[in-house]
Amino acid sequence: MTKNDNNSQHRYWLQRCIDLAEQQSRTPGGGPFAALVVHAGELVAEGVNQVTGSNDPTAHAEVVAIRNACAQRNDFQLAGCVLYSSCEPCPMCLGAIYWARPDAVYYAATHAQAAKAGFDDSFIYEQIPLPGPERSIPFHPVALDSAEAPFDAWLANGERRDY
Amino acid sequence: MTKNDNNSQHRYWLQRCIDLAEQQSRTPGGGPFAALVVHAGELVAEGVNQVTGSNDPTAHAEVVAIRNACAQRNDFQLAGCVLYSSCEPCPMCLGAIYWARPDAVYYAATHAQAAKAGFDDSFIYEQIPLPGPERSIPFHPVALDSAEAPFDAWLANGERRDY
Repeated sequence: MTKNDNNSQHRYWLQRCIDLAEQQSRTPGGGPFAALVVHAGELVAEGVNQVTGSNDPTAHAEVVAIRNACAQRNDFQLAGCVLYSSCEPCPMCLGAIYWARPDAVYYAATHAQAAKAGFDDSFIYEQIPLPGPERSIPFHPVALDSAEAPFDAWLANGERRDY
Repeated sequence: MTKNDNNSQHRYWLQRCIDLAEQQSRTPGGGPFAALVVHAGELVAEGVNQVTGSNDPTAHAEVVAIRNACAQRNDFQLAGCVLYSSCEPCPMCLGAIYWARPDAVYYAATHAQAAKAGFDDSFIYEQIPLPGPERSIPFHPVALDSAEAPFDAWLANGERRDY
Protein backbone atom coordinates (compact mmCIF):
# COMPACT_ATOMS: atom_id res chain seq x y z
CA MET A 1 0.00 0.00 0.00
CA THR A 2 1.40 3.39 -0.94
CA LYS A 3 1.40 6.30 1.44
CA ASN A 4 -1.37 7.95 -0.58
CA ASP A 5 -3.54 4.86 -0.38
CA ASN A 6 -2.98 4.82 3.34
CA ASN A 7 -3.88 8.46 3.64
CA SER A 8 -7.08 8.05 1.64
CA GLN A 9 -7.98 5.05 3.84
CA HIS A 10 -7.61 7.17 6.97
CA ARG A 11 -9.75 9.89 5.37
CA TYR A 12 -12.39 7.33 4.45
CA TRP A 13 -12.77 6.03 8.01
CA LEU A 14 -12.62 9.52 9.50
CA GLN A 15 -15.36 10.70 7.14
CA ARG A 16 -17.49 7.78 8.35
CA CYS A 17 -16.85 8.95 11.91
CA ILE A 18 -17.86 12.50 10.99
CA ASP A 19 -21.04 11.31 9.27
CA LEU A 20 -21.97 9.20 12.32
CA ALA A 21 -21.17 12.09 14.67
CA GLU A 22 -23.30 14.48 12.65
CA GLN A 23 -26.19 12.02 12.79
CA GLN A 24 -25.68 11.53 16.55
CA SER A 25 -25.69 15.30 17.12
CA ARG A 26 -29.34 15.30 15.98
CA THR A 27 -30.30 12.17 17.99
CA PRO A 28 -31.87 12.57 21.46
CA GLY A 29 -29.44 11.40 24.14
CA GLY A 30 -26.45 11.91 21.91
CA GLY A 31 -23.58 14.29 21.39
CA PRO A 32 -21.59 15.28 18.28
CA PHE A 33 -18.93 12.58 18.49
CA ALA A 34 -18.31 9.16 16.91
CA ALA A 35 -15.44 6.68 16.76
CA LEU A 36 -14.62 3.45 14.92
CA VAL A 37 -12.27 0.54 15.51
CA VAL A 38 -10.77 -0.98 12.36
CA HIS A 39 -8.67 -4.12 12.01
CA ALA A 40 -6.86 -5.06 8.79
CA GLY A 41 -9.02 -2.67 6.80
CA GLU A 42 -12.29 -4.05 8.19
CA LEU A 43 -14.67 -2.31 10.57
CA VAL A 44 -14.75 -4.05 13.98
CA ALA A 45 -17.12 -1.75 15.87
CA GLU A 46 -18.40 1.77 16.10
CA GLY A 47 -19.32 4.00 19.01
CA VAL A 48 -21.26 7.22 19.39
CA ASN A 49 -21.55 9.54 22.35
CA GLN A 50 -24.40 8.37 24.62
CA VAL A 51 -23.74 10.36 27.81
CA THR A 52 -27.16 11.89 28.35
CA GLY A 53 -29.19 9.09 26.76
CA SER A 54 -27.65 6.38 28.91
CA ASN A 55 -26.93 8.49 32.03
CA ASP A 56 -23.32 7.40 31.71
CA PRO A 57 -20.73 10.19 31.78
CA THR A 58 -18.12 7.69 30.58
CA ALA A 59 -20.08 6.88 27.39
CA HIS A 60 -17.88 8.97 25.12
CA ALA A 61 -17.63 7.78 21.52
CA GLU A 62 -14.12 6.36 21.91
CA VAL A 63 -14.97 4.48 25.14
CA VAL A 64 -18.14 3.05 23.58
CA ALA A 65 -16.23 2.02 20.44
CA ILE A 66 -13.51 0.35 22.54
CA ARG A 67 -16.09 -1.53 24.64
CA ASN A 68 -17.97 -2.64 21.53
CA ALA A 69 -14.80 -3.70 19.72
CA CYS A 70 -13.54 -5.65 22.73
CA ALA A 71 -16.90 -7.41 23.07
CA GLN A 72 -16.80 -8.19 19.35
CA ARG A 73 -13.27 -9.61 19.56
CA ASN A 74 -13.83 -11.29 22.92
CA ASP A 75 -10.63 -9.70 24.19
CA PHE A 76 -9.73 -6.81 26.47
CA GLN A 77 -6.96 -5.68 24.15
CA LEU A 78 -7.10 -4.16 20.65
CA ALA A 79 -3.67 -5.18 19.33
CA GLY A 80 -3.48 -4.72 15.56
CA CYS A 81 -6.43 -2.32 15.54
CA VAL A 82 -6.64 1.36 14.64
CA LEU A 83 -9.03 3.71 16.41
CA TYR A 84 -10.58 6.53 14.39
CA SER A 85 -12.37 9.40 16.10
CA SER A 86 -14.30 12.37 14.78
CA CYS A 87 -12.47 14.49 17.38
CA GLU A 88 -9.26 14.57 19.40
CA PRO A 89 -9.72 12.31 22.46
CA CYS A 90 -10.22 13.80 25.94
CA PRO A 91 -8.02 12.63 28.85
CA MET A 92 -10.51 9.90 29.84
CA CYS A 93 -10.53 8.52 26.29
CA LEU A 94 -6.75 8.86 26.02
CA GLY A 95 -6.47 6.71 29.14
CA ALA A 96 -8.98 4.18 27.78
CA ILE A 97 -6.96 3.99 24.57
CA TYR A 98 -3.77 3.28 26.51
CA TRP A 99 -5.49 0.47 28.43
CA ALA A 100 -6.99 -1.02 25.24
CA ARG A 101 -3.68 -0.71 23.36
CA PRO A 102 -4.66 -0.25 19.70
CA ASP A 103 -1.73 0.37 17.32
CA ALA A 104 -2.61 3.97 16.50
CA VAL A 105 -5.25 6.70 16.69
CA TYR A 106 -6.39 9.06 13.93
CA TYR A 107 -8.73 11.96 14.58
CA ALA A 108 -10.33 14.79 12.61
CA ALA A 109 -11.47 17.80 14.70
CA THR A 110 -9.03 19.30 17.15
CA HIS A 111 -9.68 20.37 20.74
CA ALA A 112 -9.80 23.97 19.55
CA GLN A 113 -12.57 23.12 17.08
CA ALA A 114 -14.53 21.22 19.74
CA ALA A 115 -14.13 24.12 22.18
CA LYS A 116 -16.00 26.40 19.77
CA ALA A 117 -19.04 24.10 20.18
CA GLY A 118 -18.77 24.20 23.98
CA PHE A 119 -16.68 21.06 24.52
CA ASP A 120 -13.52 22.21 26.22
CA ASP A 121 -11.36 19.33 27.37
CA SER A 122 -8.32 21.51 27.91
CA PHE A 123 -9.55 22.28 31.42
CA ILE A 124 -9.15 18.61 32.37
CA TYR A 125 -5.72 18.43 30.71
CA GLU A 126 -4.69 21.44 32.83
CA GLN A 127 -5.94 19.78 36.04
CA ILE A 128 -3.88 16.60 35.64
CA PRO A 129 -0.43 17.92 36.62
CA LEU A 130 -1.76 19.74 39.70
CA PRO A 131 -1.23 18.20 43.15
CA GLY A 132 -4.40 16.20 43.93
CA PRO A 133 -5.72 18.36 46.78
CA GLU A 134 -5.34 21.51 44.65
CA ARG A 135 -7.51 20.28 41.77
CA SER A 136 -10.98 21.78 41.25
CA ILE A 137 -12.27 18.34 42.27
CA PRO A 138 -9.83 17.65 45.12
CA PHE A 139 -8.12 14.25 45.20
CA HIS A 140 -7.14 13.51 48.83
CA PRO A 141 -4.73 10.72 49.78
CA VAL A 142 -5.52 9.03 53.11
CA ALA A 143 -2.77 6.79 54.46
CA LEU A 144 -4.14 3.46 55.72
CA ASP A 145 -1.99 0.60 56.98
CA SER A 146 -4.21 -1.81 55.06
CA ALA A 147 -3.82 -0.03 51.70
CA GLU A 148 -1.57 -2.68 50.19
CA ALA A 149 -3.63 -5.69 51.32
CA PRO A 150 -5.44 -5.99 47.91
CA PHE A 151 -2.09 -6.00 46.09
CA ASP A 152 -0.66 -8.62 48.44
CA ALA A 153 -3.73 -10.82 47.82
CA TRP A 154 -3.38 -10.23 44.07
CA LEU A 155 0.27 -11.25 43.98
CA ALA A 156 -0.56 -14.32 46.08
CA ASN A 157 -3.32 -15.36 43.64
CA GLY A 158 -1.63 -17.93 41.40
CA GLU A 159 -4.60 -17.91 39.01
CA ARG A 160 -4.65 -14.17 38.46
CA ARG A 161 -4.96 -12.97 34.88
CA ASP A 162 -2.67 -9.99 34.33
CA TYR A 163 -4.02 -7.14 32.22
CA MET B 1 -19.25 17.29 62.29
CA THR B 2 -15.75 17.77 63.66
CA LYS B 3 -12.69 17.27 61.55
CA ASN B 4 -11.96 14.03 63.38
CA ASP B 5 -15.42 12.64 62.68
CA ASN B 6 -14.98 13.51 59.05
CA ASN B 7 -11.62 11.82 58.95
CA SER B 8 -12.94 8.63 60.55
CA GLN B 9 -15.80 8.64 58.02
CA HIS B 10 -13.31 8.78 55.14
CA ARG B 11 -11.33 5.96 56.72
CA TYR B 12 -14.49 3.90 57.13
CA TRP B 13 -15.42 4.12 53.43
CA LEU B 14 -11.84 3.62 52.30
CA GLN B 15 -11.56 0.49 54.43
CA ARG B 16 -14.72 -0.82 52.73
CA CYS B 17 -13.04 -0.14 49.38
CA ILE B 18 -9.92 -2.00 50.51
CA ASP B 19 -11.96 -4.98 51.74
CA LEU B 20 -13.86 -5.13 48.44
CA ALA B 21 -10.63 -4.79 46.45
CA GLU B 22 -8.99 -7.58 48.42
CA GLN B 23 -11.99 -9.81 47.74
CA GLN B 24 -11.92 -8.88 44.04
CA SER B 25 -8.21 -9.69 43.80
CA ARG B 26 -9.15 -13.33 44.52
CA THR B 27 -12.16 -13.36 42.14
CA PRO B 28 -11.70 -14.67 38.57
CA GLY B 29 -12.03 -11.81 36.08
CA GLY B 30 -11.12 -9.23 38.67
CA GLY B 31 -8.25 -7.03 39.72
CA PRO B 32 -7.21 -5.62 43.11
CA PHE B 33 -9.23 -2.41 42.97
CA ALA B 34 -12.58 -1.16 44.29
CA ALA B 35 -14.39 2.18 44.53
CA LEU B 36 -17.55 3.54 46.17
CA VAL B 37 -19.80 6.54 45.58
CA VAL B 38 -21.30 8.04 48.74
CA HIS B 39 -23.95 10.76 49.02
CA ALA B 40 -24.80 12.45 52.33
CA GLY B 41 -23.20 9.64 54.28
CA GLU B 42 -25.09 6.90 52.42
CA LEU B 43 -23.64 4.41 49.94
CA VAL B 44 -24.96 5.01 46.42
CA ALA B 45 -23.04 2.37 44.48
CA GLU B 46 -19.85 0.35 44.44
CA GLY B 47 -17.56 -0.77 41.63
CA VAL B 48 -14.82 -3.36 41.34
CA ASN B 49 -12.31 -3.90 38.58
CA GLN B 50 -13.80 -6.20 35.92
CA VAL B 51 -11.38 -5.72 33.01
CA THR B 52 -10.59 -9.35 32.23
CA GLY B 53 -13.91 -10.82 33.33
CA SER B 54 -15.97 -8.51 31.13
CA ASN B 55 -13.42 -8.03 28.31
CA ASP B 56 -13.73 -4.31 28.93
CA PRO B 57 -10.45 -2.42 29.39
CA THR B 58 -12.46 0.57 30.66
CA ALA B 59 -14.00 -1.43 33.52
CA HIS B 60 -11.76 0.01 36.21
CA ALA B 61 -13.26 0.21 39.69
CA GLU B 62 -13.84 3.98 39.56
CA VAL B 63 -15.47 3.87 36.11
CA VAL B 64 -17.73 0.98 37.17
CA ALA B 65 -18.66 2.79 40.41
CA ILE B 66 -19.46 5.98 38.47
CA ARG B 67 -21.59 4.08 35.95
CA ASN B 68 -23.44 2.25 38.70
CA ALA B 69 -23.99 5.40 40.77
CA CYS B 70 -25.28 7.33 37.75
CA ALA B 71 -27.66 4.50 36.88
CA GLN B 72 -28.82 4.44 40.49
CA ARG B 73 -29.41 8.20 40.57
CA ASN B 74 -30.77 8.35 37.02
CA ASP B 75 -28.41 11.21 36.26
CA PHE B 76 -25.15 11.63 34.37
CA GLN B 77 -23.73 13.86 37.09
CA LEU B 78 -22.66 13.06 40.65
CA ALA B 79 -23.06 16.50 42.26
CA GLY B 80 -23.00 16.25 46.04
CA CYS B 81 -21.31 12.84 45.96
CA VAL B 82 -17.89 11.72 47.14
CA LEU B 83 -15.92 9.02 45.34
CA TYR B 84 -13.75 6.70 47.42
CA SER B 85 -11.16 4.47 45.78
CA SER B 86 -8.84 1.81 47.13
CA CYS B 87 -6.10 3.34 44.96
CA GLU B 88 -5.09 6.61 43.33
CA PRO B 89 -7.04 6.94 40.04
CA CYS B 90 -5.32 6.43 36.68
CA PRO B 91 -5.66 9.09 33.93
CA MET B 92 -8.74 7.39 32.44
CA CYS B 93 -10.47 7.36 35.82
CA LEU B 94 -9.35 10.93 36.55
CA GLY B 95 -11.02 11.97 33.30
CA ALA B 96 -14.16 9.98 34.13
CA ILE B 97 -14.28 11.69 37.53
CA TYR B 98 -14.07 15.13 35.90
CA TRP B 99 -16.96 14.26 33.56
CA ALA B 100 -19.08 12.85 36.42
CA ARG B 101 -18.26 15.83 38.67
CA PRO B 102 -18.45 14.45 42.22
CA ASP B 103 -17.49 16.94 44.95
CA ALA B 104 -14.27 15.20 45.99
CA VAL B 105 -12.18 12.04 45.76
CA TYR B 106 -10.44 10.15 48.58
CA TYR B 107 -8.06 7.29 47.92
CA ALA B 108 -5.87 4.91 49.94
CA ALA B 109 -2.98 3.31 48.01
CA THR B 110 -0.70 5.57 45.99
CA HIS B 111 0.58 5.02 42.47
CA ALA B 112 3.91 4.00 43.96
CA GLN B 113 2.23 1.27 46.03
CA ALA B 114 0.26 0.04 42.99
CA ALA B 115 3.42 -0.01 40.88
CA LYS B 116 4.95 -2.56 43.27
CA ALA B 117 2.11 -4.94 42.30
CA GLY B 118 2.69 -4.36 38.59
CA PHE B 119 0.16 -1.59 38.01
CA ASP B 120 2.13 1.36 36.80
CA ASP B 121 -0.06 4.20 35.61
CA SER B 122 2.75 6.71 35.61
CA PHE B 123 3.64 5.67 32.08
CA ILE B 124 0.27 6.96 30.86
CA TYR B 125 0.65 10.17 32.87
CA GLU B 126 4.03 10.69 31.17
CA GLN B 127 2.52 10.13 27.71
CA ILE B 128 -0.17 12.81 28.05
CA PRO B 129 1.94 15.96 27.58
CA LEU B 130 3.77 14.52 24.53
CA PRO B 131 2.78 15.70 21.05
CA GLY B 132 0.25 13.16 19.74
CA PRO B 133 2.39 11.63 16.97
CA GLU B 134 5.28 11.10 19.42
CA ARG B 135 3.29 9.02 21.91
CA SER B 136 3.95 5.27 22.17
CA ILE B 137 0.46 4.88 20.70
CA PRO B 138 0.64 7.65 18.09
CA PHE B 139 -2.29 10.09 17.89
CA HIS B 140 -2.40 11.51 14.35
CA PRO B 141 -4.48 14.58 13.42
CA VAL B 142 -5.91 14.50 9.88
CA ALA B 143 -7.34 17.78 8.63
CA LEU B 144 -10.73 17.33 6.93
CA ASP B 145 -12.90 20.19 5.69
CA SER B 146 -15.93 18.40 7.13
CA ALA B 147 -14.49 18.07 10.64
CA GLU B 148 -16.74 20.73 12.16
CA ALA B 149 -19.97 19.50 10.55
CA PRO B 150 -21.04 17.52 13.68
CA PHE B 151 -20.54 20.60 15.87
CA ASP B 152 -22.50 22.79 13.46
CA ALA B 153 -25.35 20.27 13.54
CA TRP B 154 -25.13 20.13 17.34
CA LEU B 155 -25.34 23.90 17.76
CA ALA B 156 -28.27 23.99 15.32
CA ASN B 157 -30.15 21.33 17.32
CA GLY B 158 -32.53 23.35 19.50
CA GLU B 159 -33.43 20.26 21.53
CA ARG B 160 -29.86 19.30 22.41
CA ARG B 161 -29.17 18.41 26.03
CA ASP B 162 -25.86 19.90 27.09
CA TYR B 163 -23.64 17.76 29.28
